Amino acid sequence: MAMRMKDIAEELGLSVVTISKVLHNHPDISAKTRERVLKHVEARDYQPSMLGRSLVTGNSFLIGLVVPDLLHPFFAEVAKALSLAVRGSGYSLIISSSEEDPGLELQEMRQLLSRRIDAIVVASTATSGEAFQRMHRNNERVLLIDRKFPIEGGAFVGVDDVAAGRLATEHLIQVGCRNIAHIGGRENSTGLDRLEGYRQALLAANLPFSPKNVIHRTRVDTNSFGEGAAAARLLLSRKVQPDGIFCYNDPLAIGAMHVLLEAGVRIPEDIALVGCGNLHYDNSLLVPLSSIDQKSSEIGRVAGDIVLKMIANKEKNNGETVVLSPSLVVRASSRRGSAKATAKTAKAK
Amino acid sequence: MAMRMKDIAEELGLSVVTISKVLHNHPDISAKTRERVLKHVEARDYQPSMLGRSLVTGNSFLIGLVVPDLLHPFFAEVAKALSLAVRGSGYSLIISSSEEDPGLELQEMRQLLSRRIDAIVVASTATSGEAFQRMHRNNERVLLIDRKFPIEGGAFVGVDDVAAGRLATEHLIQVGCRNIAHIGGRENSTGLDRLEGYRQALLAANLPFSPKNVIHRTRVDTNSFGEGAAAARLLLSRKVQPDGIFCYNDPLAIGAMHVLLEAGVRIPEDIALVGCGNLHYDNSLLVPLSSIDQKSSEIGRVAGDIVLKMIANKEKNNGETVVLSPSLVVRASSRRGSAKATAKTAKAK
Repeated sequence: MAMRMKDIAEELGLSVVTISKVLHNHPDISAKTRERVLKHVEARDYQPSMLGRSLVTGNSFLIGLVVPDLLHPFFAEVAKALSLAVRGSGYSLIISSSEEDPGLELQEMRQLLSRRIDAIVVASTATSGEAFQRMHRNNERVLLIDRKFPIEGGAFVGVDDVAAGRLATEHLIQVGCRNIAHIGGRENSTGLDRLEGYRQALLAANLPFSPKNVIHRTRVDTNSFGEGAAAARLLLSRKVQPDGIFCYNDPLAIGAMHVLLEAGVRIPEDIALVGCGNLHYDNSLLVPLSSIDQKSSEIGRVAGDIVLKMIANKEKNNGETVVLSPSLVVRASSRRGSAKATAKTAKAK
Repeated sequence: MAMRMKDIAEELGLSVVTISKVLHNHPDISAKTRERVLKHVEARDYQPSMLGRSLVTGNSFLIGLVVPDLLHPFFAEVAKALSLAVRGSGYSLIISSSEEDPGLELQEMRQLLSRRIDAIVVASTATSGEAFQRMHRNNERVLLIDRKFPIEGGAFVGVDDVAAGRLATEHLIQVGCRNIAHIGGRENSTGLDRLEGYRQALLAANLPFSPKNVIHRTRVDTNSFGEGAAAARLLLSRKVQPDGIFCYNDPLAIGAMHVLLEAGVRIPEDIALVGCGNLHYDNSLLVPLSSIDQKSSEIGRVAGDIVLKMIANKEKNNGETVVLSPSLVVRASSRRGSAKATAKTAKAK
């Protein structure tokens, strides 16, 4: 049986109110009593019940996080940073994966909401913001991350995805690519905005934008290796092959990389490759991968700050929107010319 | 405001008891009424409160999972499989990372237990089982995964780590290595058992076991790239360099791989490399990495089954122990001779 506050009080010959005041940092307690209580609490391994704390404050001290796939390191990095950001305030994360299925996402969100969690953070896999609009109307505390919807007053943290697409494509143009393909994502904000950045960079450089050069994939988070490989095969089957490829995310780029190398294509000499996400393993890949850094840890950290602020101010949704600037990390997969590094000279992190 | 069962009842002109019976699949309800209620519940987007369900059943429908690091893909894979295994029964996972710090692990476990979760699953970063022994005495429902302690009656799921070390080392011997080093883990069951397997394989092949060939690292989950690199530098500085290295885990092997390649060492010709974990990205690395498959998904799935069984049977701890057999996956990093594959011919997954 777990020890109760009453047991601690009896053992010390103090009232339950006094013990409670010490544990809640109430100023109305002498330093001597405080020390005596805390020492005993420590010695007896007593843990105050969160359930009791919940009943007093009306908070569950739980934050829900729904991501498309925990195995995708981008979302694991976001989850780690978010967990760290809220842990100090006594909050824990309930993490749930939608497996890139909008129906399952909805079900998981309903399940989390039914637990009366204090806030829900979602990297949505839906292409419509309908469910979030409804949650917003129902005064649920929701924070969208990474992928956004046009919801009036809704809070959001992510990167500027148009800038991400532009940065990657401008870099490919700068290293000499003239026929740049795009292995694209789904029709959500990240997919459409990175495509738009790619288009803008081509037009700004007076290069043609051809829809034929854009290969859209749909299972980009859960089946990314397979989807990237299939898209690369399609591009290689063309009469005129591309000399550069910007991929919606790094796992797609890894799938494409395998197919290109198998076909004897030299990376980056024949085809330069840039991904998006700047994952943990990018530097250690077959060909170390150039990538757009999406600031995964900062997204998690900022998301934590925003939800804690919402909860502290008893706001349902403060409409705070933070758009971070992406940056380009150049590695061997797009490093052409004299500065070109081979796999052998890539540095360990 | 969330809709209540009372609202649904009033709108349909039925009693709250009838609505409740439908939602709990009570047999005492006509098919017609059942259909009418369920249709209305669907249309009104009504979600029964888990809090209510918790008060009725005494369960929180929460399972805690504590791992050393969510960014390490092995633990992300376990988490994904565990989540999937318990989701169908209405359970959610509270996931917490110990950052490979035994003190933080203890604090996070206490925090989870204070939430009155139904079970806690831990890949412990501790080197002593003291805290678990105490939880066991306190009748907490604890399942250890991956790393075990000698706790009487304690439940456990993991792989046979002696077999893992033996498999990896036997393979290195079989491809011709005669001076095999081990970049080892911490002094926990996984670290010590893999070392023991390595030792057994050497002795069985009449090769000397030299403690000098074992480099112990301590931050093997959170700083594995750096630790693997440092260990490889140490091995390269030796008068007699090894011709094969078995690494405690894959991220350590990746760190070592960078240092070897930078030093001009050919993998596997000069030094063959085998890791442990068989991670998602092993096939796409600078040199695709041979590895021991630790059955991460199966560990998660079996762990889910065991805790659900414990909860259903109202057992505190059923002492169930499942030890899975590891297997070897050979890739370019140890494929010597005619069957040797170069990076270019590695197949995409």
